Formats: sequence, C-alpha cells, structure tokens
Amino acid sequence: MNIVLLSGGSGQRLWPLSNDIRSKQFIKIFHTADGALESMVQRVYRQIKEVDGDAAVTIATSKSQVSSIHNQLGEAVGISIEPCRRDTFPAIALAAAYLKDVKGIGEDEAVVVCPVDPYVENDYFEALKELGQLAQSSEANLVLMGIEPTYPSEKYGYIIPDGSKKVSRVSMFKEKPTQQLAAEYIAQGALWNGGVFAFRLGYVLRRAHELISFTDYNDLFAKYDTLNKISFDYAVAEHESLIEVMRFSGTWKDIGTWNTLTEAMTGNFVGEAMFNEECKNVHVINELNVPIICMGLKDVVVSASPDGILVSDKEQSSYIKPLVNKLEQRIMFAEKSWGSFRVLDMAEGSATIKVTLHPGHRMNYHSHDHRDEVWTVISGEGRTIVDGMEQQVKPGDVVTMAAGCRHTIIADTELQVIEVQLGKEISVHDKHKYELED
Amino acid sequence: MNIVLLSGGSGQRLWPLSNDIRSKQFIKIFHTADGALESMVQRVYRQIKEVDGDAAVTIATSKSQVSSIHNQLGEAVGISIEPCRRDTFPAIALAAAYLKDVKGIGEDEAVVVCPVDPYVENDYFEALKELGQLAQSSEANLVLMGIEPTYPSEKYGYIIPDGSKKVSRVSMFKEKPTQQLAAEYIAQGALWNGGVFAFRLGYVLRRAHELISFTDYNDLFAKYDTLNKISFDYAVAEHESLIEVMRFSGTWKDIGTWNTLTEAMTGNFVGEAMFNEECKNVHVINELNVPIICMGLKDVVVSASPDGILVSDKEQSSYIKPLVNKLEQRIMFAEKSWGSFRVLDMAEGSATIKVTLHPGHRMNYHSHDHRDEVWTVISGEGRTIVDGMEQQVKPGDVVTMAAGCRHTIIADTELQVIEVQLGKEISVHDKHKYELED
Repeated sequence: MNIVLLSGGSGQRLWPLSNDIRSKQFIKIFHTADGALESMVQRVYRQIKEVDGDAAVTIATSKSQVSSIHNQLGEAVGISIEPCRRDTFPAIALAAAYLKDVKGIGEDEAVVVCPVDPYVENDYFEALKELGQLAQSSEANLVLMGIEPTYPSEKYGYIIPDGSKKVSRVSMFKEKPTQQLAAEYIAQGALWNGGVFAFRLGYVLRRAHELISFTDYNDLFAKYDTLNKISFDYAVAEHESLIEVMRFSGTWKDIGTWNTLTEAMTGNFVGEAMFNEECKNVHVINELNVPIICMGLKDVVVSASPDGILVSDKEQSSYIKPLVNKLEQRIMFAEKSWGSFRVLDMAEGSATIKVTLHPGHRMNYHSHDHRDEVWTVISGEGRTIVDGMEQQVKPGDVVTMAAGCRHTIIADTELQVIEVQLGKEISVHDKHKYELED
Repeated sequence: MNIVLLSGGSGQRLWPLSNDIRSKQFIKIFHTADGALESMVQRVYRQIKEVDGDAAVTIATSKSQVSSIHNQLGEAVGISIEPCRRDTFPAIALAAAYLKDVKGIGEDEAVVVCPVDPYVENDYFEALKELGQLAQSSEANLVLMGIEPTYPSEKYGYIIPDGSKKVSRVSMFKEKPTQQLAAEYIAQGALWNGGVFAFRLGYVLRRAHELISFTDYNDLFAKYDTLNKISFDYAVAEHESLIEVMRFSGTWKDIGTWNTLTEAMTGNFVGEAMFNEECKNVHVINELNVPIICMGLKDVVVSASPDGILVSDKEQSSYIKPLVNKLEQRIMFAEKSWGSFRVLDMAEGSATIKVTLHPGHRMNYHSHDHRDEVWTVISGEGRTIVDGMEQQVKPGDVVTMAAGCRHTIIADTELQVIEVQLGKEISVHDKHKYELED
C-alpha cells in the first residue's frame, strides 16, 4: 500500500501542548501495550506497519515538522515537504508528484490519502488497504471512505451514497450542517467524510496538471508559494462523477480537542498526578517535573507544559482558541533535528536554556551579534568548536562564547548543556549560520 | 501596645505555596491600596502600625522563619526565636521572658498575644489595643477576645460568657464541637475563641515559673527542647478564675485553607491567569512565569508554584493534607536571609539553580565534598571569594568551584547567578561552613 499521511499545521486547540512549532500529532500521550508512551503519529505509523509491513508511508507536511517526524519515526519514512501551507489540493498534488518523480511510483498504482491524526484501531488500516485495492481495480477515479455516523455532528462534512451497500456511488456532498440537517442527512443514509480517499496516481497527476501549470516535482515545489489555497474536496472530489464511497463502521475518533483527546487516553493521566476520590472523569497531561494534585473536580482536563497550564471543563475546552490568541506566544520547549531545548528562565538581560543533543548530532555552526553565551556541560560527552578550535567536553566543562564568535557543539553520546545567554537584546533572529570546514 | 504575634509552623493545607520551609503567612497574595502585593504577616504588621504607630511588635516563631520575617518586615521587629516547636504555652512563656529580660518591659505592662494570620480590618487592632488597656486596668488576670460567631462552626473552640455585656466574666470554655452543639452554644451566647488574649507581663511570668523551672530568658531558651507540648488555653486559661472576655463583632477570617484564603483575596487572581466567561467563583494564585487558562470552572482554586500545582474544588481543598503527605517533598524555592533560590532543573548528576542575593548580603562561606559548582552571573555586581581570593564579578562572568574549595558570593547590588551543581550525590546536607577572615 502507498499511503500519504497529511500532517496538518500546529493547532491552538490543544494549547499548552501544541504551539506555533509543536503540533498535537507529536505529543506523547498514548500508552502502548508495553506501557511506553507514543504520539498520534507514532501510533498511526505503528498501526499501518502492523497491518501492512510493506506499506510505503509518505508524510505530507511543512518543513517545521521534519525534525519531529525523523525523531519520532526514524529516517525511513518518506516526507513530501510543503514549502508553505496551501490547503489539501496543492499538498496532495505535490505529494503525488513526489511519489512519481522522487519515489518512482507508477501512475497505475493506487495511493491512499489519510489525515495523520485519526484515533482508530487496526481495522481502520485494513479498510484503507481495501480502499487502495478498490481504487486499483474499480472503474471509479476516486474511492472515498465514509464513516458511519454515531450522532448528528456539526463538525464533519457528509457524503450521501447512492444506496446502502458497502461500496456505492456517491450521490452528493454536504458541507458541515446544523444538527437538525445532520439528523436529516443521517436519516437519508449519509456518512461522515473523514478526509480519506484512494486513487490511481495518474488520475491526481492529470487533475493537478489541468489546474496548475507545472512540469515535474521540482518545478511544482519551486512555484508552490504561488498556488491558491484550495481543498481537495472542492478542487477535485466534488467535480468527479466516477466516484465511489466505501462504508466504515469501526472505531474512529477525531482527536482535535482536549475533550476528544482525553476520551482516547488509556489512563487518567500522563506525567505526575494525584486525584482524590471525589474526582470524576478528570484527565491530567503533565509535562512538568512537579506534581499536580486534583481534588473534587468533575469532567475537567488539566494540561501543563513549559508553555503554560490549562484547567478546563471538557466541553468548554473546544472554545480555547480566542484565549490562546490573546497570549503572547513564548516558545518554551521545542524539538529540533539535533535534539531539543527547554527555556528554564527568562530575565532582563539573560535567558537560561537546557539543551539536549542526540548522539551523533550537532547544532548549526553559528554566531550571535548581540549576546554572549556560556555552556556548562551537565551530562554526556562531545566536542565544541569555537572559532575553528575543537575541544573535547565532559560534565562540568564550561565554554564561554563572546558575541560574534562562531560556535557549535557535537554530541558523541547523548549530551546535555545548560546554556546561559547574556545580552540586552536576546532574540531567536540574532543568528548567523556558517558551513563547518573539514 | 506590646503585642506578641504567634507565627505558627509551615502548613501543608496551603500546598503548593506552603511547604516544609515556607509558611502561608509569607505568601504574597493580598493587594494593598496601591496595587502592590503583600503577605499576611506584612498586612497584619502594616495594620498594627496604622492603628498604633508606637506598638512594640514581637514575633514568636521558629528559627526557620527569621529570614523571611526580616526580608518582609525589616530589622526593627522583635523576634522571640523558639529553638523547636513546643505549642503555645512554652512559646508564650519564652516570649514573656524575652520581653522582660531582652526588651526590658516592666512586669506591670500589658501584653497582647494574637496569631500572626487573622484576616481582619483595622478595627480588630483597635479592639486589641482596648484589650491591652483592659488587661492593664482590670482586676482580671487574663482578658480574652471573643469573636461573635457568624455560623455554627466545628473548627473553633467556644467561650461562654457570663452575660451579654461587651466585657463579661468567662463562664466556661468548650472544645471544638459538632455543628449541632455549636448551634446550642451560640444560642447560649457563646463566642468563638480566636486565640487572642491580654495580660500583665508579670502574670504570665509567674504562671511560667510555677509550671517550668527556669531562672531567666537565656535559661528558658537553653532548656526549651526539654519542655512538654501544651497549649496556653490548657495550661493557663482554663485554670484561671479571674478571667474576662471582650466581644468583637468586626471582620475576622481564619485563612487556614484555600477556601477561606480565596475569600479574602481582593481580585480573582495573583500572577498570570485568564478566565473565560463561563468561570464562576474561580481563583488562581500563580507563582510560575507561564500563563494559566481556566475555562468553564465553578468554585475552583488553582495554585501553581515551583513545588507543584493544585486544582481543587474549594470545599474539597481543606482535605489536602493526606495527599501532600504522599508527595516526596522537594523544595524548589526558598527565601533565605541573603535572598532566595529557585531550582530550575534537576537531572541525574546535576541541578541548575537561580540564586538572587540582596544588596549588601552574601552566602555563608562554604564548601561541598561531593559536588563541583559553576556560577554564571546574569545580573548585578558583586564579589566572589574562592579559597580566599576575592574577585569582582559582573554579568557574563563565570566562576568554577571544584569540590572542596571554599567559596561565597557577596552582592554589592541586587545580584543574580545561575548555579550549576555537578556531582553524583547532590544533597543540601553536603555543606561545610567557615568563618571569613578579614
């Protein structure tokens, strides 16, 4: 199976665990069978590989997620990098060109497209495999998955099939309706549109060439920022007459809010938490290294990260966006290709940061105009390069770097450093990168 | 007026803001008229001075609170230091000996004793002044304050007066009753025992000498740890026949739990917090430098400190002790005589701490057996002394101290330092103190 996972932008609806550079699909909140924690993207990737060990997985995403994807899934996964965000049609067109021109997939081969963040069981991916087989053999150009509704939701688009068989022609698409309309659609046999579809690669490439003038993957990539934002449904699916829908009635949850996310959690908490007996339906996700005590709460989610703390009634939690928009966004934690950082303290004229580097990785070789830095190695072994001079470092070693001096640190083992930044204007934009000479 | 404020031990009932070394009376949660924040002890001290600018205030407390008291009230306040905790009778006996032998107060002078943490208005201290005058002139040996009850509380002892005049003889004391009994007492005209009383100094000294064999203040101080724990009510008040009670009907709140403490707050939050419109009767006390967002909560208190996070229904919050007892206590923030420290990060083999020194203050001159330390100055100016060598320091300066080396830092201005501790066994007990040679 060729599968393209659409990995969307960072959301504010799961603040404080998602932010401008950290998306919900990378938060480790699900317990695996052996008790470890995995993220949504790790869960989905694991499930796909359990169902089809040979599945070729490509993630369509923006540059900002590449580090997290490699950290969480390893290097084997394909990534179609969108230079900027342009909605699902351009993203799928680019991924299709990537599959053909970079991965060498034939135009007759079926491709399944699916969001990266449904909370499902393995039967969902069995169904995706079936969807791909249908797309391969059917005369239809597009085969959708239609999820059997469990209630008249206002959050999803609806697909009205031309009959009640497992696979039917699509009769009509309906935009997100009111609850009353949703109930009427369901009475007519409507299915939820979960954003999953399969096609032969050549079909989408032809549609792409009809709508966008480009020669190949590199050309499309180069002009990506000039494309209009348009959804795949609007650009392609709604105009296609040879289109079918396959029913799916297994578990399917859209983990877009704290309310739905906590429903999918296997226990009541991740991280350090205590509840008294009066707590009912309370979930805690605690990324801080201090305890959270909950007493006498009902239907509440508590989430704490280096960025902030949310305490919300579960129903109310879906209205978080306007509140988060009012916050001054300060990124206090981020994963990078080389490891991660966490801001420990911000003060006037200084910032203190804990930097973790993965073995074999290093920071960019860089300098700052307006700040000095002091590194104190607290664990691991590695080497620093400061203005071209390489030096071995171990715990307790201190390296000072004046403004203007070029520096990097290379991890030979997992390496942790306390970095103190000093200067009147401390900014992430104050950075020059350089090539390292051999 | 001579007034002794009893400053009790650290409570767990206001976790995470109070802990083993930090007591509720020092938490800055009250807004003054000009918008600044003040603690309970600062509020009470300010109120006393507003009512009686000449009041001689002595705080009876343990050694662990002395730094916080001087930091918050300055150096002028008297402190009777209890070498260990022995309940209110030994504490008051020691304070009485301190007033006579250290402060030179005459045995005929009246002394008023009062807890350090009632939430009251200035009329309460007017009443205390009156209580002192009564004790001075009355034939009674002891004059208590009786607070007119507002509901049949199970939390307080009751005083049954011999009549309904403003000042009456005491007819009987009653221990904390059931709610039903409390209602009966109130029907008989009972008053709450708020732990406030006045006497002529000589009276309590005589009682003290009857019950404890000691010569003077220094002798009592030296044998303090051999004394039995016993309350003043039990040792003295309940055996005294020449005893009066004066009614008080003004504002009086016992700020012993989150529920009562939040009632006394002037606004809904201290620190960074946001509420959506569905929140009702929600209070946030946030000592962290990240925002807290509350949504759809009712009757909830959220309190966040470097030690942890509490989210509790207000009624339930009074049952916190057993949960806090289960926590491994890690002190993440503390005030010291020289300033304060906050633990930023704990890891295997290292700890990172932000140290703030007040101008003119310094740490003890000390060394560690099992850890190296690195200081990076982030603000202010001062001097370090390392193995006898003094050196000026300013922001950006780095000082490294190997295990065994003697060191201190002296603040010439307000000084902040990031201290990285490195070693296999990092413990607060690994410390040797030395005298500094001139």
